[in-house]
Amino acid sequence: MKKWSLFETGTPQSWKEHVGGRFNTKGKKFLDRDLALEFFGVSVNELAAGEHAPFWHAHSTLEELYLVIEGEGEFALDDDIVAVQPGSALRVGQGVMRSWRCLPTSETPMRWICIRGAGAKLADVPPDAKPVLYTEKPLPWG
Amino acid sequence: MKKWSLFETGTPQSWKEHVGGRFNTKGKKFLDRDLALEFFGVSVNELAAGEHAPFWHAHSTLEELYLVIEGEGEFALDDDIVAVQPGSALRVGQGVMRSWRCLPTSETPMRWICIRGAGAKLADVPPDAKPVLYTEKPLPWG
Repeated sequence: MKKWSLFETGTPQSWKEHVGGRFNTKGKKFLDRDLALEFFGVSVNELAAGEHAPFWHAHSTLEELYLVIEGEGEFALDDDIVAVQPGSALRVGQGVMRSWRCLPTSETPMRWICIRGAGAKLADVPPDAKPVLYTEKPLPWG
Repeated sequence: MKKWSLFETGTPQSWKEHVGGRFNTKGKKFLDRDLALEFFGVSVNELAAGEHAPFWHAHSTLEELYLVIEGEGEFALDDDIVAVQPGSALRVGQGVMRSWRCLPTSETPMRWICIRGAGAKLADVPPDAKPVLYTEKPLPWG
């Protein structure tokens, strides 16, 4: 394994350029493979004002941390709603059903970093995401 | 354990206000306890233009990831020097001796997020840092 690795995401304002390119999911770019991360994973994420995640999901094994860099948003966590802004660090534990949106009034897209880990090598963590469509569980923002 | 936890770091531009307050080491604020993180740790960090880390160090167990948010700097990694800028994501593996600086020409302080993990509960990772004073191992920037 390389002793160190570097990946240039560009400034948060340029993250969107990678959608369909280096972003490998709409609005999300995982850095895990680019960096050969072993014990935790990282992604950079962007959502335009007024947009929301397309579904809820929970993780049975992974702990996740959301670090908001730009924009104003809300996270739905089971029955709670948490407002976030630049500088917000939000830990979400296992089993918590979550979804999020960038507020329609946000002056910039919401841009955030997501870190995930489970106390094991990431490659040894089985797929543990439980997605729930909002047609089954309505989103609090309609 | 709480299902989720939130900590407001403020914008990167305000991180420095926490020195001596919420910053618990010069230029560094760990969020681990504030968030009750279980599997990985996170800190926000700031160094003024022209300043450098006061020593080298390596970790025998922890994998670390540095995400640069603002400013221009350099990381010394064993015998390599890596230039970093906003958006740089730098993974540093175990055993690599590292130090860093914010360039004297940087227009802003260097502000970065550091994530660390070892494939175990963070509380079960023994102290694994090996610091080396620059009086013993000279820094490449003198």
